[in-house]
Amino acid sequence: MTLSLISLGLWNEKSMSLEALEAAKNCDVLYMEEYTAKLAGAGNEKIGEEIGEKINLLEREKVESDFLIKESEGKKVGLLVGGDALTATTHIDLMLEAKKKGIETKYIPGTSIYSVAPGLAGLQIYKFGRTASVPFPQENFRPETAYDILKENKKMGLHTLVLLDTEPANMTANEGMKVLLEIEEKRSEIVFTNETGVVVVARAGSENPLVKYGKVGELLGEDLGEPLHCFIVPGKLHFKEEEALSLNK
Amino acid sequence: MTLSLISLGLWNEKSMSLEALEAAKNCDVLYMEEYTAKLAGAGNEKIGEEIGEKINLLEREKVESDFLIKESEGKKVGLLVGGDALTATTHIDLMLEAKKKGIETKYIPGTSIYSVAPGLAGLQIYKFGRTASVPFPQENFRPETAYDILKENKKMGLHTLVLLDTEPANMTANEGMKVLLEIEEKRSEIVFTNETGVVVVARAGSENPLVKYGKVGELLGEDLGEPLHCFIVPGKLHFKEEEALSLNK
Repeated sequence: MTLSLISLGLWNEKSMSLEALEAAKNCDVLYMEEYTAKLAGAGNEKIGEEIGEKINLLEREKVESDFLIKESEGKKVGLLVGGDALTATTHIDLMLEAKKKGIETKYIPGTSIYSVAPGLAGLQIYKFGRTASVPFPQENFRPETAYDILKENKKMGLHTLVLLDTEPANMTANEGMKVLLEIEEKRSEIVFTNETGVVVVARAGSENPLVKYGKVGELLGEDLGEPLHCFIVPGKLHFKEEEALSLNK
Repeated sequence: MTLSLISLGLWNEKSMSLEALEAAKNCDVLYMEEYTAKLAGAGNEKIGEEIGEKINLLEREKVESDFLIKESEGKKVGLLVGGDALTATTHIDLMLEAKKKGIETKYIPGTSIYSVAPGLAGLQIYKFGRTASVPFPQENFRPETAYDILKENKKMGLHTLVLLDTEPANMTANEGMKVLLEIEEKRSEIVFTNETGVVVVARAGSENPLVKYGKVGELLGEDLGEPLHCFIVPGKLHFKEEEALSLNK
């Protein structure tokens, strides 16, 4: 019948739109997943209370199987997702599969770190290049893509938003910076060093987000508080951006 | 006292978050501006009905003066803005000025075209380069920045989101494509031609957005319906992205 992808926005049960709330109430059954994005300020129970319905937490395997497609054949199914649902490839794929099966699909947007982090930092969003993601390094998997993206953006004077892994744990900005410093140590291309300026954005979307600007060497050992963290490596700064950053030193 | 920047999200009076609604109700006086971003699905009256308070529309000059700062000295002032308020430089500046004057500031995020358009098109947001904006060309002002950005992103295989002017009118995707074709004619660098693939995204955030993939030459003469329009010039496509686009041909 219908598969609705309902975005929850960035922080807690108040972050979703009025439209999202109405769409959720209209569903016959509600699921939620927490592995492509996690709401730091609310779990499925709090969200369920706000909507007034029970929400079933789905593990990754189920989301990626044909479970939701099958469920949607005879029912109005809603999948609740933190942030903006369609920033995750998994959910783009899900919508695609549903459409191919002739199931009606709906998508309700949500606030996303992609637009909120730049604004919180006081940086101009149209001066951002490609976004980088830092995964937890593993024995045989130490990707350097984030470093390459930083290098490219730097060359063009563009800012870079650096997103951090959320699985199996929430990577802190400190950990993320360490991962990039290790790549720097290996490649020595002077892309990300202790002297590099960064803006840490923590708990974006909450009432008390942290925005802190400094050098990597200064911020590396600081306690940046509760998750989620991300950071921005600024490129060439407009004087107004400079001013905004100086207020958050 | 307090200056709250309250984002309204992408479409109408239902696009704002629950938090935004509460924040607006808490203000002593509410203003709205429609020149950095316009809600195509609702004006200040409909928004006011939803909130249950009168909303005063502010013209550009007032927003950019110290009017709001002065107002905020003794009152809880809310400024309502379509999309995400802090994607506009004007509002970053406003927050900066308020902070410098010691006025408490709040920011409530909203859904933004920056994250919603990629998802609607079925394209992966982390493969987007810098965003381009196309202004209406004027006698003595025919900027080619958008063309340059398309060229850079193309070189790196990245997708480009192309935003269109909303002042003095809403530029259609057709008009935007024409502007870029004229620059192509002049520069001949084969960046944006009749053969270039584009995805038009119209009325993002509404219940019936249009997503249409085709060549510039095909879409140029098509009626793409009501505003707002934007489009995406895809770079190198993953096969899943290819599949998503083919469903919207």
